[in-house]
Amino acid sequence: MRIALGLSYRGAAYLGWQSQPSGKAVQDHLEAALRRFVGEGVRTVCAGRTDAAVHALQQVVHFDSPVERAPFSWVRGVNSFLPPDIAVLWAQAVAEDFHAQKSAISRRYRYVLLASAVRPAVLESLVGWTHARLDLERMRAAARILIGRHDFSAFRASQCQARSPVKTLHEIEISCQGNTWNFDFHANAFLHHMVRNIMGCLIAVGSGAQDTEWLQNVLMARLRSLAAPTFMPDGLYFLGPHYPVEFGLPEPARALPVLLA
Amino acid sequence: MRIALGLSYRGAAYLGWQSQPSGKAVQDHLEAALRRFVGEGVRTVCAGRTDAAVHALQQVVHFDSPVERAPFSWVRGVNSFLPPDIAVLWAQAVAEDFHAQKSAISRRYRYVLLASAVRPAVLESLVGWTHARLDLERMRAAARILIGRHDFSAFRASQCQARSPVKTLHEIEISCQGNTWNFDFHANAFLHHMVRNIMGCLIAVGSGAQDTEWLQNVLMARLRSLAAPTFMPDGLYFLGPHYPVEFGLPEPARALPVLLA
Repeated sequence: MRIALGLSYRGAAYLGWQSQPSGKAVQDHLEAALRRFVGEGVRTVCAGRTDAAVHALQQVVHFDSPVERAPFSWVRGVNSFLPPDIAVLWAQAVAEDFHAQKSAISRRYRYVLLASAVRPAVLESLVGWTHARLDLERMRAAARILIGRHDFSAFRASQCQARSPVKTLHEIEISCQGNTWNFDFHANAFLHHMVRNIMGCLIAVGSGAQDTEWLQNVLMARLRSLAAPTFMPDGLYFLGPHYPVEFGLPEPARALPVLLA
Repeated sequence: MRIALGLSYRGAAYLGWQSQPSGKAVQDHLEAALRRFVGEGVRTVCAGRTDAAVHALQQVVHFDSPVERAPFSWVRGVNSFLPPDIAVLWAQAVAEDFHAQKSAISRRYRYVLLASAVRPAVLESLVGWTHARLDLERMRAAARILIGRHDFSAFRASQCQARSPVKTLHEIEISCQGNTWNFDFHANAFLHHMVRNIMGCLIAVGSGAQDTEWLQNVLMARLRSLAAPTFMPDGLYFLGPHYPVEFGLPEPARALPVLLA
């Protein structure tokens, strides 16, 4: 039977989602825990392959299980074999035609950015950091340029495996509380490094180093070399995928854990 | 000249504030960084000696410096020699009679607690965790019993070095957002493990395992053995000390960095 799991992890200690020969990827830890719980090896597929050091609030994973277990038994049992910075949030039996990656209609990411003269300490590796002063309206104007269906080649890593660089970016919502900025991205799919590359450009405009016309040119030229450098992974969170309602799966995380408010 | 520093750190990787033969305390790292910046050894005194794994949002430290530097030069210079989870927030020259510990009038701590069926992952080591369901009014009633000037021997670790177990607890403010609870403590001073021991008792009452009468008896009996076990250090943050206004130092952190809101 096909099982879907919701998974949360802090990415700092891992080489990203995808299995690595070193065994230091999130997928390696999850599959090792599943092997211990199920008694044999299972192969997992995820909704969004996160990079090294990127976090997930609701990664969704599917696999075909040779055994049947109650939903909370999956959660409790698999968690007992996972490291403390990876946790299964929920488990659910799903239709055989459900595919964690291919069934997803769209995905949400959040970038959390600290804008301050002093680097973060308590939240080190959990937030991005800039000492630039950022202007909200400049960044919102920049974000508007990127909304819609575009060829995002200018924001695509050279090692990207997507078949097409054309994606639909539904929304970039920018908000600020004190010196902490949230950037919420919603797109049908994301290219490799797309959010981090856009973040570099939004900060370039928000700090006054570039203007919106520059960003328009970067997008139109479709040249990675014209865009800002890839921004640090530390503040990037995969909030999760949206699936058609008939699969009955939870929506992406929106109201997130408040650490210190 | 005497210098005061504001310091923030994530406690997870350290054996607490106080210098250890292993060199794995926050004080060891700070003094090593100061030695590199100043060119000779300086001895630091802090406002509140935090335990292993306990965090600080505004620890205050003083030392006598053989050199004179501009405030932001202390911040930038010392930070360049500190690990990424320890940061100097501000520096200020202070009167020769200022003493980070003895001049403090009162101190504030916050405990951040996740109440959920599933353990935290992204915030592992940054929040405490219970799977108990907690009742706000029960915990507020319990907290009221502890407010005021009392002999807090029932909440004191055996290795506590304070001269007297009598302290004045000004306030315990309890609030809740979703499944995250904040407990704000304000007292003239705290005994060793006092917040974590009180947290164990508040959770015992809040979950229904004990009642407020029991807590009243624990306090009156002054016996550690009657109280709940010491709660985990993970969610404990030293917000900082209050000093007389004439020293001109920043107040404790109150509006704290929002990670995910």
